[in-house]
Amino acid sequence: MLLNLDRLSPLPLYRQIHAQIAALIDGAQLVADQPLPPTRVLAQRLGVNRSTVIRAYAELAAEGYAASRPGAGVTVRTRQGFVRRSEAPAGAANGTLATSQGLKAPLYDLATMAPDPRLAPMTEWRRAIAQVMARQGAELMGYGEPQGYLRLRQWLAEYLRRHRIDTDAEQLLLTNGAQQALDLIVRWLVKPGDRVVVESPTYGQILPLLAAAGADIVAVPMTAAGIDLACLAEVLATRAPVLVYTMPSCHNPTGVTTSQGHREQLMALCEAAQVTVVEDGFVEDLKYAGPAVPPLKALDQRQSVIYVGTLSKVVGPGLRIGYVAAHPATIQALTELSQYTSLGGSPLLQAAAWQFCRNGWFAAYVQRLHRHYRRRLQALVQALERAALPGVCYQRPSGGYLLWLTLPAARMGEDQLVETLAAAGVAVKGGRQFYPQPLHGVALRLSIAQVDDSQIEAAAEILVALLRQLLALSEEHANGHS
Amino acid sequence: MLLNLDRLSPLPLYRQIHAQIAALIDGAQLVADQPLPPTRVLAQRLGVNRSTVIRAYAELAAEGYAASRPGAGVTVRTRQGFVRRSEAPAGAANGTLATSQGLKAPLYDLATMAPDPRLAPMTEWRRAIAQVMARQGAELMGYGEPQGYLRLRQWLAEYLRRHRIDTDAEQLLLTNGAQQALDLIVRWLVKPGDRVVVESPTYGQILPLLAAAGADIVAVPMTAAGIDLACLAEVLATRAPVLVYTMPSCHNPTGVTTSQGHREQLMALCEAAQVTVVEDGFVEDLKYAGPAVPPLKALDQRQSVIYVGTLSKVVGPGLRIGYVAAHPATIQALTELSQYTSLGGSPLLQAAAWQFCRNGWFAAYVQRLHRHYRRRLQALVQALERAALPGVCYQRPSGGYLLWLTLPAARMGEDQLVETLAAAGVAVKGGRQFYPQPLHGVALRLSIAQVDDSQIEAAAEILVALLRQLLALSEEHANGHS
Repeated sequence: MLLNLDRLSPLPLYRQIHAQIAALIDGAQLVADQPLPPTRVLAQRLGVNRSTVIRAYAELAAEGYAASRPGAGVTVRTRQGFVRRSEAPAGAANGTLATSQGLKAPLYDLATMAPDPRLAPMTEWRRAIAQVMARQGAELMGYGEPQGYLRLRQWLAEYLRRHRIDTDAEQLLLTNGAQQALDLIVRWLVKPGDRVVVESPTYGQILPLLAAAGADIVAVPMTAAGIDLACLAEVLATRAPVLVYTMPSCHNPTGVTTSQGHREQLMALCEAAQVTVVEDGFVEDLKYAGPAVPPLKALDQRQSVIYVGTLSKVVGPGLRIGYVAAHPATIQALTELSQYTSLGGSPLLQAAAWQFCRNGWFAAYVQRLHRHYRRRLQALVQALERAALPGVCYQRPSGGYLLWLTLPAARMGEDQLVETLAAAGVAVKGGRQFYPQPLHGVALRLSIAQVDDSQIEAAAEILVALLRQLLALSEEHANGHS
Repeated sequence: MLLNLDRLSPLPLYRQIHAQIAALIDGAQLVADQPLPPTRVLAQRLGVNRSTVIRAYAELAAEGYAASRPGAGVTVRTRQGFVRRSEAPAGAANGTLATSQGLKAPLYDLATMAPDPRLAPMTEWRRAIAQVMARQGAELMGYGEPQGYLRLRQWLAEYLRRHRIDTDAEQLLLTNGAQQALDLIVRWLVKPGDRVVVESPTYGQILPLLAAAGADIVAVPMTAAGIDLACLAEVLATRAPVLVYTMPSCHNPTGVTTSQGHREQLMALCEAAQVTVVEDGFVEDLKYAGPAVPPLKALDQRQSVIYVGTLSKVVGPGLRIGYVAAHPATIQALTELSQYTSLGGSPLLQAAAWQFCRNGWFAAYVQRLHRHYRRRLQALVQALERAALPGVCYQRPSGGYLLWLTLPAARMGEDQLVETLAAAGVAVKGGRQFYPQPLHGVALRLSIAQVDDSQIEAAAEILVALLRQLLALSEEHANGHS
């Protein structure tokens, strides 16, 4: 049994041991009833304290990976009913609620879209929090400013100006994650029966929000270049929507980043139709390939764009810090709404985030993510290129977390495909949840955030092999029944 | 110039110096053009670093309290246009937005209802945060469980069981403060046109929430014993409301805590009418006088009560941790809503709050607050008793932060009264904002949370003297014009 401990990792050693043994069991490299090394032996071999190994074994036992019998030491158990341990909110990830019990981790998680916890700069976070608590103390335990912590707004304004968005702290509102920003905007702008344009596919969690507001959702297809502009023009002319919701950079789920030309045309259409554009820049910082394209908001001559950003997808969702950049009157209205619906966010976390950014750690961390995510995305794309699976289409993204596959129509439905992959240890997202209307065909969303650099090639190979097998099977099925 | 520094206070020394000099200037004990001591002299006298004094003077200068002229040292400036520096969210406090610029502090703040930052257990907070970050690290930077951090829910369930509420972790949802809990409940339960019963007066920030949901607000008067039960019975029989919103303990703004008998009658009425009761237990822990009365939720035989609690009013609003205790189906629905409207709260803060409570610091801190707040409330009540102002009515509360005064109708309107008191250095809340309908008469809400034990008697004396003077003046006016 070969384990590799990373002493610089933010993951505690016992968790590393636990995760690696669990992966060996999931991968059938360790089989049922096989004895695990005695704790004393493994501790010595790894150069860790024996209590570290005991803790790792206890976790394995609690999750059904191992059994401890008197006299027999600790042995491997085969586990039934494979389900994945969700680090991301289940609601965000798959539209259903997870139980609060810990679920088992898949061998390879290509489903979750949240920053890799293994890369999280925990030392820096601890320092940033300690710094602001030492300096500001009790005031961070009180209510914050209605628009959010001023210094963080100032830092974000400066940051957005570097992205060519002309703004300042007064034109920003901090929210409890981008999700609350979207909720505030929809509540403020959308009345029952109002038409709202979304891309198809789009971010799955915007759909229940719009439905709750009574919106009439109008789906405009995504093309390889971004939202279909001819179709959008038609919709703007004939359906008079109040709002267009778009993700021009590293679109979720397709990964598409639109060109400057596409952005200019989109803005021209929306300005002519006098419709409000909500631009979701949820991974503005993760365009690590291709030309840099400024956000739509940078083209916003008539203050018709409401820009939504977030620190979640870079520095960590646990901070719950999103923000809105918009016209001061819009910010004023959203701030009032935020006050009586939540009394705003935590000044402690907002101040800590500011300190983190201010210390230069934000920029350093973004670079680190780029390095890892670029490598992972490349490994995934290369595996798919080599495999050349017939009928499987994808587009290489210029950043972000995501790769979007469309599959040939097949007997095997999406649910069954996703379940079969999961049972084989590869968790992915089915595409249907990203569509406002029923989907004909099968699509999968792959995220590279949760699979370590050292594992991404193996994950990609397994995925490709499984897909090949499943598609062939499905083909046979189809032929057999045709 | 006599300054008193508290080296155990969580307030930095420069802020203490700044605040005390500002108070002397506001109180006219220091007058325009009077020189402040040279920084070197004051630093020596106070035994602090000179840079501490320089920083305090810089803050004073920035706020217009002091001027620095070459050769003349630093001198006092008289400031025009007194406004108070709000520590509480302006939206919560007075229904309007504060600017994000720091506003000037009043001499005595009897307006803000939030735990006294001077009493905040910052050492314990720092330790709790360090403990959970060391133990759990990166997982706290990810998304949390949809219902909120399990261990905190378990602790709260145990805590609520001690308050005789029969619940467990599965029947609890953690929210971004109690305000988000109220928002989720209203969004889930109230359709446009639905009737909702509120007490009159009631918590001011429930009103825009209900208005936004399109509720038809039905006001039922508060009596000295709690909501008027005869009137409530009439409303339940004739208006068919969907929801009754009530604060049976330390009611905001009146301070009334209802008896066991009143609670039983209220529950019987609501159960018979099959109406949902939302019980706001925002200061459940601060009943420091009189008999202990369990919450309405403890009487809830038919699962018709949704209980809203919060850690804000005890351990600090900056954590943004509120919660809902209700039937599992209700919790399930509210959790789904919370997911697509905000993706939940911060696992880091929820874990830190659990650690704080778990370490026994919650209980110790509540006792500390009781000791201070009891003393302050007593000082305020005694000053009013001694003054025996004609026509001024109040009821001694059995806990909480608040004392509610109703004043004789007078020529001086409420706004003018509040402004005049503020100009004299005493900030209070006018009563009108707590009423769903226009108020005939004048009422004031006094909070004892922000005035130190050592200052409460002085604050009370000044308030009483001002009220005597203003009421007499107002009387003369009335007589003169009659």
